[in-house]
Amino acid sequence: MKRDLDALMEARGLDAFVVSGRTYGNPSLVYLLNGAAVTQGIVVKKRGETPVFIHSPIERDEAAASGLLLVNMARYHFTDILRETGDRLKATVELYRRIFADLEVRGNVGFYGMADQGQAYLFLSALAKALPEIRVRGEYDEALLDVARATKDAGEVAQIREVARLTCEVVEETVAFLRRHPVKDETLITDDGAPLTVGRVKEYVFRLLAERRLESPEGFIFAIGRDAGVPHSQGRPDDPIRLGQTIVYDIFPRRAGGYYFDLTRTFCLGYAPPEVEKVYRDVADCLDAVVAEVRVGVEARRLQQVACAFFAGRGYPTIAEHPETEVGFNHLIGHGLGLAIHEEPVFTDVPSNTRTLQPGHVFTVEPGLYDPGKGYGVRLEDVLWIDEAGRVHNLTPLPKELVVEM
Amino acid sequence: MKRDLDALMEARGLDAFVVSGRTYGNPSLVYLLNGAAVTQGIVVKKRGETPVFIHSPIERDEAAASGLLLVNMARYHFTDILRETGDRLKATVELYRRIFADLEVRGNVGFYGMADQGQAYLFLSALAKALPEIRVRGEYDEALLDVARATKDAGEVAQIREVARLTCEVVEETVAFLRRHPVKDETLITDDGAPLTVGRVKEYVFRLLAERRLESPEGFIFAIGRDAGVPHSQGRPDDPIRLGQTIVYDIFPRRAGGYYFDLTRTFCLGYAPPEVEKVYRDVADCLDAVVAEVRVGVEARRLQQVACAFFAGRGYPTIAEHPETEVGFNHLIGHGLGLAIHEEPVFTDVPSNTRTLQPGHVFTVEPGLYDPGKGYGVRLEDVLWIDEAGRVHNLTPLPKELVVEM
Repeated sequence: MKRDLDALMEARGLDAFVVSGRTYGNPSLVYLLNGAAVTQGIVVKKRGETPVFIHSPIERDEAAASGLLLVNMARYHFTDILRETGDRLKATVELYRRIFADLEVRGNVGFYGMADQGQAYLFLSALAKALPEIRVRGEYDEALLDVARATKDAGEVAQIREVARLTCEVVEETVAFLRRHPVKDETLITDDGAPLTVGRVKEYVFRLLAERRLESPEGFIFAIGRDAGVPHSQGRPDDPIRLGQTIVYDIFPRRAGGYYFDLTRTFCLGYAPPEVEKVYRDVADCLDAVVAEVRVGVEARRLQQVACAFFAGRGYPTIAEHPETEVGFNHLIGHGLGLAIHEEPVFTDVPSNTRTLQPGHVFTVEPGLYDPGKGYGVRLEDVLWIDEAGRVHNLTPLPKELVVEM
Repeated sequence: MKRDLDALMEARGLDAFVVSGRTYGNPSLVYLLNGAAVTQGIVVKKRGETPVFIHSPIERDEAAASGLLLVNMARYHFTDILRETGDRLKATVELYRRIFADLEVRGNVGFYGMADQGQAYLFLSALAKALPEIRVRGEYDEALLDVARATKDAGEVAQIREVARLTCEVVEETVAFLRRHPVKDETLITDDGAPLTVGRVKEYVFRLLAERRLESPEGFIFAIGRDAGVPHSQGRPDDPIRLGQTIVYDIFPRRAGGYYFDLTRTFCLGYAPPEVEKVYRDVADCLDAVVAEVRVGVEARRLQQVACAFFAGRGYPTIAEHPETEVGFNHLIGHGLGLAIHEEPVFTDVPSNTRTLQPGHVFTVEPGLYDPGKGYGVRLEDVLWIDEAGRVHNLTPLPKELVVEM
């Protein structure tokens, strides 16, 4: 949480940190700016002090909404610095030298926020050389801002709950839309007599999202049959919607610039083949088994272990024993969820992953079983939240039913 | 253009390059992947060879749509590498060591694509140390992928034209929506008798966008009166829509994961004050003057100089002489437009900016004059494209009219 920033800085020996870049695709910057509708900027925070936002002059109104201390970038006359140095890299180093001098930043300084990787390497290498009074720091794993963002406060959870509510509505409306279609030769038929396709369903879903002012910038998965058997296949637009086939519907929308939700349901229209019924029960049971393990202090990797052991016990291959398997359970059990779809905590099952579940964590649990050769896949995904008292809440108020009656 | 990649590599002395990261907010990766709907990956290109895409195993279907040579990441057993090294940074270095060995990558290797800047610094520093057979390269300015992306081929221009067409429709429909409202005491009134507000207009615009399957991930500007006088103020939701005030409407949507368009019109409903009429004419004349300068070989900074000189000649302050001015012309004359809203070419007026306009460039020209104290701002923005024969095309088929009759 934001209130942990000073403690996290202290644990890392940081005297200050910088988060910079454009806001688009840069959740740590959006986080610190409290959602202010600016396009870019530099946030500098010293330990124990309020962050300072160095903002574009033409965004001074929007910058004020951040609630941070404001410094107008115009005062640095960056174009003049560019003229003096004759080089954008040198000019940027000089800009930071002046900012750090004004704000009296020295010592260990962490750098975060999205940038072109080659440019970040050149810039931070040059900065480290040019400013002996600071030491450039960063963390490759469990980076400060990622860890702070992982534990959500009440206001953040309220925003996630609202997106959850709307996302559940979208899924229910999608199922209702499917059920309104007549069936001919096991295939859903549209008004013009043609088969209903994945592409048509997706168009309808985009409309449902837009009506709720949700955006889905990374698309969503609506995949049927064989494609449902490949976890991240988004679904082929021309595929007809047929009875008795698994449909994996995995959708992860957000309010513009805000918190994501993430939800997966699998269903068959009309009826389900017996093998799919069994697989579905096993996935649902696995979800229950994993959720039962969730409590403060448990190692995150334990959830991955529980899922793999559960599925192995029921006779399925898993990536724990078969890293290249395309059949069975072949992905991570979940991921943190917030301003990014995938964030801390990370559930990879390796000994070096010593993360433990903490109050405030919001994350998905999403076991799945796949067999593309047999033409099916099943995944179920709920979002859990551990509140400050350590109680575990399921944030996905949507039932799970394999068969949708037609 | 993509066909220039080898020549651009040669000019930079690169034997190979890497573009990696998540696709979201990472236009250079999206570009190389030809829009394939994957969430992440590593692209490695050696000079003279087809790029190789190392993709997630659960995204193998979507990866195939990239048209690149495919390598399934599952073969590297990254979790085992994590176990062996006990550290995510060391494991990632080892992963790249194996990938480079398999692909026989050595020599000067450029690194591009969005990453957390601290992590990029740590990773590339560690990689440079661990792999003596490669030299880590990047460019802080005019980076290879940015330069390649700046010149659009016919297929890219066709996509931009389609978004242009839809964006113009949205603007026209917005104006029609405004005109449908009755006026009382100089203010537009809704059905329920309350004033029409900026917030209500924005809701309507979001619906117009959604109907056309456009997204506007960075919002848009619909600002009236004093807010129109601050270039990037997005507009306050509670502001009523009144006659005789400048409305700056600056909208920059895209198809999901695709090319942006960017369009600004300024208008007054009912009538315009005489001072605004004059300012509007000066902005429109400046746009014409800048467009008249556009041709292959002209320095990009020249457009900024022309705009500043033009406005100075008509008696307005500009950032050329007053870097901190909030009145007059106080921003860049334009920016390249493509998979990012702001990309190459860059128009900053400094001697080190030696960029010249080239066939394939698509960029905005957007002069503006602002006076927040007097409560107005005017900006007009068209998009230009220089085709392969050097002909200049205006891609914004929308008239400019200051006064909208009510």
